[in-house]
Amino acid sequence: MDRVLNFYAGPTALPLEVLESAKSEMLNWKGTGMSVLEISHRSKEYTQLHNETKDLLRKLLAIPENYKILMLQGGASLQFAMIPMNLLGDDQTAGYIVTGRFSGNAFETAGKMRKVYLSASTEENGIFSRLPEADEIIIKPGTVYLHLTSNNTIFGTQWKQFPDTGPVPLVCDMSSDIMSRKIDFKPFGIIYAGVQKNLGPAGAAVIIIRDDILERSREDLPDILSCRVHAEKNSLYNTPSCFATYMMNKVLKWAREKGGLDAVEKQNEKKAELIYGAIDKNPGFFKSRIQKECRSSMNVTFNLPSEELESLFISGAQKTGIVGIKGHRSVGGVRVSMYNTHPTGDIEVFVDFMKDFIKHNG
Amino acid sequence: MDRVLNFYAGPTALPLEVLESAKSEMLNWKGTGMSVLEISHRSKEYTQLHNETKDLLRKLLAIPENYKILMLQGGASLQFAMIPMNLLGDDQTAGYIVTGRFSGNAFETAGKMRKVYLSASTEENGIFSRLPEADEIIIKPGTVYLHLTSNNTIFGTQWKQFPDTGPVPLVCDMSSDIMSRKIDFKPFGIIYAGVQKNLGPAGAAVIIIRDDILERSREDLPDILSCRVHAEKNSLYNTPSCFATYMMNKVLKWAREKGGLDAVEKQNEKKAELIYGAIDKNPGFFKSRIQKECRSSMNVTFNLPSEELESLFISGAQKTGIVGIKGHRSVGGVRVSMYNTHPTGDIEVFVDFMKDFIKHNG
Repeated sequence: MDRVLNFYAGPTALPLEVLESAKSEMLNWKGTGMSVLEISHRSKEYTQLHNETKDLLRKLLAIPENYKILMLQGGASLQFAMIPMNLLGDDQTAGYIVTGRFSGNAFETAGKMRKVYLSASTEENGIFSRLPEADEIIIKPGTVYLHLTSNNTIFGTQWKQFPDTGPVPLVCDMSSDIMSRKIDFKPFGIIYAGVQKNLGPAGAAVIIIRDDILERSREDLPDILSCRVHAEKNSLYNTPSCFATYMMNKVLKWAREKGGLDAVEKQNEKKAELIYGAIDKNPGFFKSRIQKECRSSMNVTFNLPSEELESLFISGAQKTGIVGIKGHRSVGGVRVSMYNTHPTGDIEVFVDFMKDFIKHNG
Repeated sequence: MDRVLNFYAGPTALPLEVLESAKSEMLNWKGTGMSVLEISHRSKEYTQLHNETKDLLRKLLAIPENYKILMLQGGASLQFAMIPMNLLGDDQTAGYIVTGRFSGNAFETAGKMRKVYLSASTEENGIFSRLPEADEIIIKPGTVYLHLTSNNTIFGTQWKQFPDTGPVPLVCDMSSDIMSRKIDFKPFGIIYAGVQKNLGPAGAAVIIIRDDILERSREDLPDILSCRVHAEKNSLYNTPSCFATYMMNKVLKWAREKGGLDAVEKQNEKKAELIYGAIDKNPGFFKSRIQKECRSSMNVTFNLPSEELESLFISGAQKTGIVGIKGHRSVGGVRVSMYNTHPTGDIEVFVDFMKDFIKHNG
């Protein structure tokens, strides 16, 4: 089988050029006589790669100088614990907006370590079809931060504008839409993300943290769970996920070549128009549960008139080389995850498949 | 430059066959039309790989059925925190034997989360040149576990026989000698290891935990830090370091092909004889600080008569394609890390270099 059209929610498709480059260096990276998989994380070659990767991320995302960049193991899920452990004193609190599974996990995890409260939830009978309105968001006095998840991977919602919380900094899990669009960092105290969607393969998380927030890190934590220690040690307190850094480096250079965030954002808007256009043209057949203003440009979910048709759609797609479009096991239906890697042409191929399917089954 | 002789302490050399296999599958793994870097961790192909890797490890190490195997992100360092968090009640305690830097880190980390005590330390003026005798090890009444580090990577000591602690289970960090020799699991409650030495590249840890110990996991922890949850979810609670699992799978198959632990152990003994033989033949020139009975078969450390000669030795080795032998920055001198990957012939090449060096500089 040739390379497939991979619409998995993550880990997911990487640019072919990136994979080819990694392949060519697998036995001997940059004339070191070693694979990057074999080199010490204390070597000058790895250190250079590590620092260059941080610089690339800072430039591409336009991260201001007063934010530190950490690259740690454990994914976003470990940050669900580390962030409240580091930032909240025993008598302090933070608000959590729950708009899906992972924001719910973040809230639940924080609640095991510190005192936090539910700032808003859009759950209705197990379904999250929208984001909260401004007047639904509660911010209690003394709130240290307000946590939210910028893009919901399972239901397919995405904050287009972030809520105005005044002086309360936002802490945002951007695992599934980081680097998909330009971001104004001002309201954010922390932006963090697992790298396995837009940034690289699984095995690491990026944490972008404002200096004054970092300084609040509690002193009573062990080094391995301390944001302050990881920042002081340049994310080399313990052995990092070196290969994830290496792949991220290549993905960042690839995105820069593509024209940076301006070009990436335009392409993502175009792709979203194409696929939501095809859905809205056939609303009796392709049913989106998501409120229009909240639709994600990364993860598009829809249902067909029956589970039988959904199965037929998914297996038919598979036959034409389109994989990874089965909806999350908790919600069913179809989900197309189209991260930066996919050119507009990939979505055109998928939309053609949708049209063809409705012609024969509509 | 061709491939070098890589004696880094870890991450370190991987078998050439393993790298070549990974290279050949980089664009299309097992006919999936994807790299293993791109496939969902929920796909049947990854799940199969994940479970096969656990099975390979169980068979190679002869892990009894009443132990669970976890494969998690965060390295051994995260386990320094997770193990005491999970296993110790607020009024319970555990003993820690400190024989070097990482066992010290484990003790310090545990002390930030729970009540633990120093069971023994062999530190003298910042140097750890030996392991404790049986009568130096304190075990307080009610001790839940005794923690130790089987091999010290920095100074180069290794427990040849583990202390008899009666009913108190050992919890052992085997990061730098796991899979280097046969292990009787009976005294161990937990054996854990970062994978970046004998098992694969950086980015994951293996935790082998006895069922009755696992059942003690505290209920008040967040899922991401709970050993019980990771075991229940088959280490797929969150996205794992898929590529580390993939590489570990190949390394395990390679070790099986080599003849399994019997063959590996014999080779490691032979290599240790060769290199310590060369040191002991010239004790006035190659000076080992380590007590003979405690010498590591994985990491061999020695000093030369002067720092100038050490620099000359290290740079001379580099010129012949031998890299990674500079002693750890905290102790200086020379360190040769010879994990399973290195055939005996690699050590013969190094010993020849030692002989040649003494001929010209001795």
